[in-house]
Amino acid sequence: MPKLRVLCFAISVDGFGAGPNQDLQNPLGVGGPALFEWFFPTRTWRKMHGAEGGETGVDDDFAARGFEGVGAWILGRNMFGPVRGPWPDESWKGWWGDEPPYHTPVFVLTHHPRAPLKMAGGTEFRFVTGGIHEALQLARDAAGGLDIRLGGGVATIRQYLRAALIDEVHLVIAPVLLGTGEHLLHGLDMRALGYEATEHVAGTRAAAHVILRKGAGP
Amino acid sequence: MPKLRVLCFAISVDGFGAGPNQDLQNPLGVGGPALFEWFFPTRTWRKMHGAEGGETGVDDDFAARGFEGVGAWILGRNMFGPVRGPWPDESWKGWWGDEPPYHTPVFVLTHHPRAPLKMAGGTEFRFVTGGIHEALQLARDAAGGLDIRLGGGVATIRQYLRAALIDEVHLVIAPVLLGTGEHLLHGLDMRALGYEATEHVAGTRAAAHVILRKGAGP
Repeated sequence: MPKLRVLCFAISVDGFGAGPNQDLQNPLGVGGPALFEWFFPTRTWRKMHGAEGGETGVDDDFAARGFEGVGAWILGRNMFGPVRGPWPDESWKGWWGDEPPYHTPVFVLTHHPRAPLKMAGGTEFRFVTGGIHEALQLARDAAGGLDIRLGGGVATIRQYLRAALIDEVHLVIAPVLLGTGEHLLHGLDMRALGYEATEHVAGTRAAAHVILRKGAGP
Repeated sequence: MPKLRVLCFAISVDGFGAGPNQDLQNPLGVGGPALFEWFFPTRTWRKMHGAEGGETGVDDDFAARGFEGVGAWILGRNMFGPVRGPWPDESWKGWWGDEPPYHTPVFVLTHHPRAPLKMAGGTEFRFVTGGIHEALQLARDAAGGLDIRLGGGVATIRQYLRAALIDEVHLVIAPVLLGTGEHLLHGLDMRALGYEATEHVAGTRAAAHVILRKGAGP
């Protein structure tokens, strides 16, 4: 059975998955890029951005595995872009330029309908107005038997966790404090939702990788 | 200037520093011992409990350093014991037997006066009813120029963090989920309080060690 997986999702020591005040200049929120200091030097990140070289090792292995066996993605709308409310036009095409790093169908949760958007390299953004269950069903249908990766952001992951629909969460705990922002797990009783920590690996740079999996519950 | 330090304080991936429902059978709260799986195998822990052997390495180094250069301790009352309200008698002498591992004066915060309690090995429990500032002043006076270690629990550390009185917090992030319990950092804007993460080390077993220090603020 294909799985719904959150992969390479970074949180701070104080639990924030994004900084406050996301906007065009701060797609990860203010201070948010500090969460990704483990990711930027990797060979995988550099390759995604058309550059050569970069570090290999544990962090890069996790980064690379985050794209393997994934047949569709789900994103919250705020992760797709900073536009709020009805789409004013079709001009916003994501943060990632003409060739986004997904190379699969990407289901974007939104309250506002919009026509699908085909990008270079096989990525197609499809806009889903029916909520998280519908998006998951559409992603499963489109994934060709492969897994579905839930990219974020925080609010979307929390919705899927609350519904206990996520099979696996790979968190990267970055050794930074954000102080404020979007807290990933506050108020979610992860044990009652059936999750446990099943694996942990020290990263190449600072961050700690922790895998949470949904089991039979406590 | 001697420092007020929290050392070897473990939290779960979801941020809890103790499990729920602390009582005589569950001094760390239900599920709380999972936070200390990095600590129990160390040579330092075994030595504290009169046993030989045990692991050396990063985890043991941190555990051992937690007792070096410390001239006094401060504990919240719940960390001293499960008794609530006025002391019914003098029979409760802490969780640690006749010779507690402190070997210094230990200032216990409580609303209820009690006579000091001398234990074997140099530990003396002194009960402070005047609040966190008074306890800190008394501990400084008693520490002979050495640092003061704030042992916990969660509520006490939160009080001292809110007052920005702690110079250093060494957290051990244990790769477990607790789901519920006492959350260490929720609602505290650690950046606004002047803290930043200055160091991180992968532990011998699973846990990640992170040092937060109070600087000039963001």
